[in-house]
Amino acid sequence: MLKLNEPMIIVNFKTFIESTGKRAVELAKQAERASKETGVQIIVVPQFVDLAKIVESVEIPVFAQHLDHIKPGNSTGHILAEAVKETGTAGTLINHSERQLYLRDIQSSIELAKEKGLLTCVCANNPATSAAVAALRPDITSIEPPELIGTGIPVSKAKPEVITDTVALVHKVDKSMPILCGAGISQAEDVTIALKLGTLGVLVASGIVKAKDPYNILCSFANATLQQ
Amino acid sequence: MLKLNEPMIIVNFKTFIESTGKRAVELAKQAERASKETGVQIIVVPQFVDLAKIVESVEIPVFAQHLDHIKPGNSTGHILAEAVKETGTAGTLINHSERQLYLRDIQSSIELAKEKGLLTCVCANNPATSAAVAALRPDITSIEPPELIGTGIPVSKAKPEVITDTVALVHKVDKSMPILCGAGISQAEDVTIALKLGTLGVLVASGIVKAKDPYNILCSFANATLQQ
Amino acid sequence: MLKLNEPMIIVNFKTFIESTGKRAVELAKQAERASKETGVQIIVVPQFVDLAKIVESVEIPVFAQHLDHIKPGNSTGHILAEAVKETGTAGTLINHSERQLYLRDIQSSIELAKEKGLLTCVCANNPATSAAVAALRPDITSIEPPELIGTGIPVSKAKPEVITDTVALVHKVDKSMPILCGAGISQAEDVTIALKLGTLGVLVASGIVKAKDPYNILCSFANATLQQ
Amino acid sequence: MLKLNEPMIIVNFKTFIESTGKRAVELAKQAERASKETGVQIIVVPQFVDLAKIVESVEIPVFAQHLDHIKPGNSTGHILAEAVKETGTAGTLINHSERQLYLRDIQSSIELAKEKGLLTCVCANNPATSAAVAALRPDITSIEPPELIGTGIPVSKAKPEVITDTVALVHKVDKSMPILCGAGISQAEDVTIALKLGTLGVLVASGIVKAKDPYNILCSFANATLQQ
Repeated sequence: MLKLNEPMIIVNFKTFIESTGKRAVELAKQAERASKETGVQIIVVPQFVDLAKIVESVEIPVFAQHLDHIKPGNSTGHILAEAVKETGTAGTLINHSERQLYLRDIQSSIELAKEKGLLTCVCANNPATSAAVAALRPDITSIEPPELIGTGIPVSKAKPEVITDTVALVHKVDKSMPILCGAGISQAEDVTIALKLGTLGVLVASGIVKAKDPYNILCSFANATLQQ
Repeated sequence: MLKLNEPMIIVNFKTFIESTGKRAVELAKQAERASKETGVQIIVVPQFVDLAKIVESVEIPVFAQHLDHIKPGNSTGHILAEAVKETGTAGTLINHSERQLYLRDIQSSIELAKEKGLLTCVCANNPATSAAVAALRPDITSIEPPELIGTGIPVSKAKPEVITDTVALVHKVDKSMPILCGAGISQAEDVTIALKLGTLGVLVASGIVKAKDPYNILCSFANATLQQ
Repeated sequence: MLKLNEPMIIVNFKTFIESTGKRAVELAKQAERASKETGVQIIVVPQFVDLAKIVESVEIPVFAQHLDHIKPGNSTGHILAEAVKETGTAGTLINHSERQLYLRDIQSSIELAKEKGLLTCVCANNPATSAAVAALRPDITSIEPPELIGTGIPVSKAKPEVITDTVALVHKVDKSMPILCGAGISQAEDVTIALKLGTLGVLVASGIVKAKDPYNILCSFANATLQQ
Repeated sequence: MLKLNEPMIIVNFKTFIESTGKRAVELAKQAERASKETGVQIIVVPQFVDLAKIVESVEIPVFAQHLDHIKPGNSTGHILAEAVKETGTAGTLINHSERQLYLRDIQSSIELAKEKGLLTCVCANNPATSAAVAALRPDITSIEPPELIGTGIPVSKAKPEVITDTVALVHKVDKSMPILCGAGISQAEDVTIALKLGTLGVLVASGIVKAKDPYNILCSFANATLQQ
């Protein structure tokens, strides 16, 4: 079970070809190995079609990338909490900058996830929207300045004030809310700084998925969280 | 100029045929007459194509129904803050339940409106999303349970706890935030209760637009705010 | 392999609880049994998270419910053609009335599916939009009047002219286009009429998914196609 | 009244600051002057909030930039056909690449416009989607490759085959359909070529709106249509 008060690294597989199908399973196994090696929580977030197979293949927590605010019924092409839960998935991202939702639907998705026993990590793009997200009581709030996503320029170095402002505003709304940050995280040092600034970990994607040796980088990220 | 610490009544013209074109101008004039008669602030919110004419026709504040998060440029079919402002419009609704926005875009629209000197009244559907809205620092937060919109069942009577919870949660985030409520408001008594529950006024639509004598109803609503 | 010039029955699992997870696998097996028993093509269309398991469990064609018009990359929460294809899925619905797309994106999704070797069944709501869809060259065009979906009132009986008009307009654009119809199909007779009106089969959902004995109903539907 | 079988130039004001408010009125007057001078039909397409004032200021046809598929009622922030019509507006763009619609809603908007006596110019991005649009029977179909919009690289020179393919496919569906083309049109020669390739005129925006002397450029465009 995921411990919400301990450091964590969430690896978003997005829709990269390097993290699709068999390669997604292989990547999830490397994340599992890094987690076991270091004792640090690592969560993998594969595409919907790969969810079930990855949950079967690894013991670390698996999250979905999105959840629709729907009940069972006439919702062709949507993501049903019950279906996600039945695979053994542990939680879900909500409102990632690449899969945004109306404010109202963010809350509906959080509520649905809670009802079905799925953890929620809700994403926002800046300190003010992060505080808004915190008011909706997800399990985790994650801040990602979209202009840095995929750039290799780490938010923790390029915009440390975004992180400290987010921590301040979010904790004003809910002082126990776990906060992650993401965008451009590619080196262990970026993780170190992120934790120093008050987060509990990072949300990473291309920095791991497109790395030559994801296992090694994940180990270095995990070790960085242990030195705090 | 609108005083944000005094009672107000916002009349949303929506896209009712009774509040379109010439009839919109006529309705705005009745609202103006009720405002002058009672001394209570009444704001009218016509359709985009009627905005300019109504601003020319009345002296009470006029709001737009929505604002897009765009800068001048290639945005065919969208609502530009500069264009709204140039008509003399005083402010805008944002995120009405019939014109919802992504969380991020609510904030962008608020910021754009502030830059251009437009007031913002941001709508939400329940106490938690109202608190989220308040974290984005609009000028006014308005709570409307969508299931009561257009029913004639007033939120202030049917769901008073929705209003008191909203007031509590919003004021925890920003204790000076003006709060309105809406949905089903059709009698002066509904307004009286709304103010007793801690709001600064109401957001009404069909209760006024489809009334036989909008002027009289608006006067009764306005007088109800004076008796607090 | 699906034969596009022979009768077919597509069973859309939507997001019904009766067609989620293990129950989806069981339902797919009943469809497979009915297909083998009658020799009629039956395609099953489960939710994304169930796709891989169902492809492994049955030999009949499996379709996805939707496909996003994306290339591999930064598209968290979206449906990538490559990921769908790698599961062994044979094709996809596009533009179902519950998962509509911009006109431009319908075409992009069709093109992407073709590139990756996925068949496309594109849905439309009336004769004119069906003709528009046919102009985009999918493999199959399916007409479903949305007002009849889930009603049990079969389009083939209630609105036969919708089907004949669709067949006429679509075949004017592309005379070899296979046409299906759906909405309210629940009895073998509805299928018989649908084929008499010029379609090649039906797109069904609740009529099968919520049936007490889906196998028997599917056999009766399949036999109805054989009597033409 | 607009003649659908004679050359025309549609000037999309988009949301450029140069075509907002008073400057929109001034630009519309220059378009009117160019139309009177040359005898060529010029249509102006201002923002919604400027529509009424421009219709009052000029005698040339004015179009809206978009129309929502709504009936009068609870549609805050949307564009109602009745409201647009009452201003004296002659028609509307639909499905511009910057304001796209679901396939179904394109048709609904066309039908609504027809009911209210508004002409429709529906936009598409390539030959296949233009043919799809033609199947929905608008008054005018306009092809604009979005990758060329605002570039100054004219579609008529850079991608003449896009225009000829569009003309061929659209006229196969409806041989009398007026076809316009747009994107990058900035010189009279671009217009000349566009007409030679089988269109009835052009849809222009920045080429006119951001020109130093819009009147002169419009005259040169109009004269180009007369030399065919």
